[in-house]
Amino acid sequence: MAHVLNPRADEILDKEFKVLNHGFIRLVDYMGGDESIVQAARVSYGKGTKTVSEDRTLIRYLMRHQHTTPFEMVEFKFHVKLPIFVARQWIRHRTANVNEYSGRYSIMPEEFYVPDESVIKFQNRSNKQGRDSEEVPPEVRKRVLEILLEEQKSAFTGYQEMLENNIARELARINLPLSLYTQWYWKIDLHNLFHFLKLRMDKHAQYEIRVYAEKMAEIVKTVVPIAYEAFEDYVLNAVTFSKQELIVLQKYLPDNIDENEIENIGFSKYEKAEFFDKLKKISHL
Amino acid sequence: MAHVLNPRADEILDKEFKVLNHGFIRLVDYMGGDESIVQAARVSYGKGTKTVSEDRTLIRYLMRHQHTTPFEMVEFKFHVKLPIFVARQWIRHRTANVNEYSGRYSIMPEEFYVPDESVIKFQNRSNKQGRDSEEVPPEVRKRVLEILLEEQKSAFTGYQEMLENNIARELARINLPLSLYTQWYWKIDLHNLFHFLKLRMDKHAQYEIRVYAEKMAEIVKTVVPIAYEAFEDYVLNAVTFSKQELIVLQKYLPDNIDENEIENIGFSKYEKAEFFDKLKKISHL
Amino acid sequence: MAHVLNPRADEILDKEFKVLNHGFIRLVDYMGGDESIVQAARVSYGKGTKTVSEDRTLIRYLMRHQHTTPFEMVEFKFHVKLPIFVARQWIRHRTANVNEYSGRYSIMPEEFYVPDESVIKFQNRSNKQGRDSEEVPPEVRKRVLEILLEEQKSAFTGYQEMLENNIARELARINLPLSLYTQWYWKIDLHNLFHFLKLRMDKHAQYEIRVYAEKMAEIVKTVVPIAYEAFEDYVLNAVTFSKQELIVLQKYLPDNIDENEIENIGFSKYEKAEFFDKLKKISHL
Amino acid sequence: MAHVLNPRADEILDKEFKVLNHGFIRLVDYMGGDESIVQAARVSYGKGTKTVSEDRTLIRYLMRHQHTTPFEMVEFKFHVKLPIFVARQWIRHRTANVNEYSGRYSIMPEEFYVPDESVIKFQNRSNKQGRDSEEVPPEVRKRVLEILLEEQKSAFTGYQEMLENNIARELARINLPLSLYTQWYWKIDLHNLFHFLKLRMDKHAQYEIRVYAEKMAEIVKTVVPIAYEAFEDYVLNAVTFSKQELIVLQKYLPDNIDENEIENIGFSKYEKAEFFDKLKKISHL
Repeated sequence: MAHVLNPRADEILDKEFKVLNHGFIRLVDYMGGDESIVQAARVSYGKGTKTVSEDRTLIRYLMRHQHTTPFEMVEFKFHVKLPIFVARQWIRHRTANVNEYSGRYSIMPEEFYVPDESVIKFQNRSNKQGRDSEEVPPEVRKRVLEILLEEQKSAFTGYQEMLENNIARELARINLPLSLYTQWYWKIDLHNLFHFLKLRMDKHAQYEIRVYAEKMAEIVKTVVPIAYEAFEDYVLNAVTFSKQELIVLQKYLPDNIDENEIENIGFSKYEKAEFFDKLKKISHL
Repeated sequence: MAHVLNPRADEILDKEFKVLNHGFIRLVDYMGGDESIVQAARVSYGKGTKTVSEDRTLIRYLMRHQHTTPFEMVEFKFHVKLPIFVARQWIRHRTANVNEYSGRYSIMPEEFYVPDESVIKFQNRSNKQGRDSEEVPPEVRKRVLEILLEEQKSAFTGYQEMLENNIARELARINLPLSLYTQWYWKIDLHNLFHFLKLRMDKHAQYEIRVYAEKMAEIVKTVVPIAYEAFEDYVLNAVTFSKQELIVLQKYLPDNIDENEIENIGFSKYEKAEFFDKLKKISHL
Repeated sequence: MAHVLNPRADEILDKEFKVLNHGFIRLVDYMGGDESIVQAARVSYGKGTKTVSEDRTLIRYLMRHQHTTPFEMVEFKFHVKLPIFVARQWIRHRTANVNEYSGRYSIMPEEFYVPDESVIKFQNRSNKQGRDSEEVPPEVRKRVLEILLEEQKSAFTGYQEMLENNIARELARINLPLSLYTQWYWKIDLHNLFHFLKLRMDKHAQYEIRVYAEKMAEIVKTVVPIAYEAFEDYVLNAVTFSKQELIVLQKYLPDNIDENEIENIGFSKYEKAEFFDKLKKISHL
Repeated sequence: MAHVLNPRADEILDKEFKVLNHGFIRLVDYMGGDESIVQAARVSYGKGTKTVSEDRTLIRYLMRHQHTTPFEMVEFKFHVKLPIFVARQWIRHRTANVNEYSGRYSIMPEEFYVPDESVIKFQNRSNKQGRDSEEVPPEVRKRVLEILLEEQKSAFTGYQEMLENNIARELARINLPLSLYTQWYWKIDLHNLFHFLKLRMDKHAQYEIRVYAEKMAEIVKTVVPIAYEAFEDYVLNAVTFSKQELIVLQKYLPDNIDENEIENIGFSKYEKAEFFDKLKKISHL
């Protein structure tokens, strides 16, 4: 055996996927793939359980039951260029490795995030942290862009003047705006990457980090297609109901859900049993 | 202001809660309480949002939306005495601090876990890692206890003979069985503790760690009653349905669930909106 | 027993220690003290070693031998107000818990870091990431302050105009400069806090984070005076020599360092043995 | 560009390196190499510092100055078979990913650690956790082996009888001794691996884990030869002197260490400056 390699993933290695006006994501390296998840899980089952069936079933079982450690056995390394305000949200994911461009050592290039007109929105009224969907009048959007561009230009001019005066870089850069682009290498295992994707692909995540997460999701899908599909089915597109909500559901669900019908839909015997276990749990609340 | 103290919690400080035949859990110290969760969450909202309403609502909102960082602001320290095979499962929770009794430094006391007859069970047939519920004949249970006790005695006799011969403790102890008791100080934040409880109170967890988790849950409930209630409602007693299961549910749920009725059950306006959002998500699958 | 409390530490609880022009550090809560380190260490030694001697000796032994886990048993919670560029360095310490003021939810107050004239310095020539010690001419310093203040004012004016136009806060804030103040709750255990202090009190750390670390060190010293003293002696003021450097030292050190003389200086028998072990190691390189 | 591959490392991929009587270490996969450390470090320096010189110098600089994050960019995955008492020490390294063979799911094979006669030793008198170097009389060693083998046999016989009675595996295994072999996949980044090696190759580490660490060190050396050399020079073979020890050294070191002589030994100008900085620090204590 050798490295777990994946021709489709290797094709996108080092390719720059554009995000926002100047940003990008590049998959720099990866270790493992769907088969590494299976390999790690099978060490737990030892010799005795060779029949556990084929890989997809196992991976889906692991995802469904939150047996998360086998997913930690796959590793990704990305090179990302992103605005600083996005980097500040991103870095909150602590179980990852990071090396960032340093404004203490090096001169920051003049590259700023400027939103596309279509994503300039009003404050959302019900959601205190988000944007409204309502259209913003063109003259307001124009004014916003004007303010942003002007400010970015003047902040960078000030930065340059200080550098020309040989002021220490670590000091000269303190007035650069959060919209400035930075870049980093970011390495993370698949379990923690799925957690990142879950939070950052969510509709409540800020648009500017969501577009990175969405691009990253495509890359992940290429490297671990089976695990990604399981992530979609059991995490991204799953819904969790609280105890109180289940009590409501219970009132509306019929007592006799047809077992045969469910088998026809393609549930395995095991998945069917799990489903009825959940219904039973609800009926006991 | 001073330390966040909690008289009800202080009452159980240092109290030994018995678990299994020789084990225990003691709450040695804690930092913070329900009010620390609120305090930390409110720093995010800044001055602007003093109206976010009262603590319970906020804590429940945080739990429901997996805003987990404020729960990290509460810290617990326990002293636990537990069999080594339980310790081996427990230690897999990595985001915690541990100091364990060392068999290299010190002589292990002769204390072994012996299961109560009622929990000696056959291998479960469908669940490869669990016990069956079927009753085990008394003579088999008796034989199991006989094997365990005899073996524990003879292992300890061998250990003692080696110690008497002045063999290095780190070597003399290598044949001691996994049923031997060890002890440790274990410190963890509330968010990670909830995760521990979720996994270890689960019916698939081994009985011998589950009883520790259940005892710990009582302690946690005393220290952070509001957060614990939210944990029960939104995590412990919640049910997550996969995409495939939601498609089934969708077939059985009526189109017109009555909004008023739901409000009568005690849902806030906000919770009601979230519930209907979920139903809408389902109907779009 | 009850909480480990420390009257001298309780006196400074919640007190605002000023840092930079608008920043501060407040000790919000703590759990444990020097005695908790000892308590945790002693669990490792079990019954058999009650004589291990008194606390200070044990704590110093643990520090010297990098037995770090007992130090993890003490926990600190701070409230810190700090410029964003400092926060960006700070957050790289991942083993900590953070809740930060959010510019998505709330309006950022108009508070910016403006360096004191005395710390405006030229770029260091030999150290690519630092400041020179050379005096900067007054007219240059004046110009730097002018640039900074002007830019901060105009950035905030733009921010306010966007807010007045009801532009989403998460978007309006993207041009705010890195010198803007933010604030957070930060919780960390003593072992990781010492690591933070070691790196951030270092002369290579940027001045603006160093002043926070130095203030924090005073607080830590109040809470765990014995552990802090050990940290100073064995970490902060210790020097590590590489293999190559030791070969040089070896050439200059006499063969016969006087054991008695060393004992007179106050080394315990044990410390003396460790010291001669090191010299022996050197002589074998 | 593509994956960072390393022919010499690929040669040992999946090879079983024997350790102890039944144990082994296999390098299952790795990501990155010396060049990934450099690549990650250079992103910090940005465009401006292409001249930082060649890789070895940079890697050594990073190691010397504890710039640890670039070392986190290299990842290793091992398959290890080891006695449970070794596994219990090993697992204390938390920043790693693990999947272990499960005695709940699977039947444990009859494989026990039996020490080679040469490593059966008496308790060390001065070091409470270690073994003495003194020879143990043959008859005592023989007796120790007898006790161990007999006990292992009888513990396994009891285990088998319980399994034959269909007792749940999770229960039947509780009396198996700590000398039983288990196995796991273990994944870790290079920075944390170096920390593991430092602690576990130390002469105070228990012999039975030290042999694993030493074998692992050989593997690491093959994958990242330059980083490993730096680790040897600046960590493994370095010596740290406490403040008190430095005061002693100071008394014995001459005032005028010859700069030229040191340059002749092969110190770069930069390393020489660092060395004299340390001496200066000492003289100011």
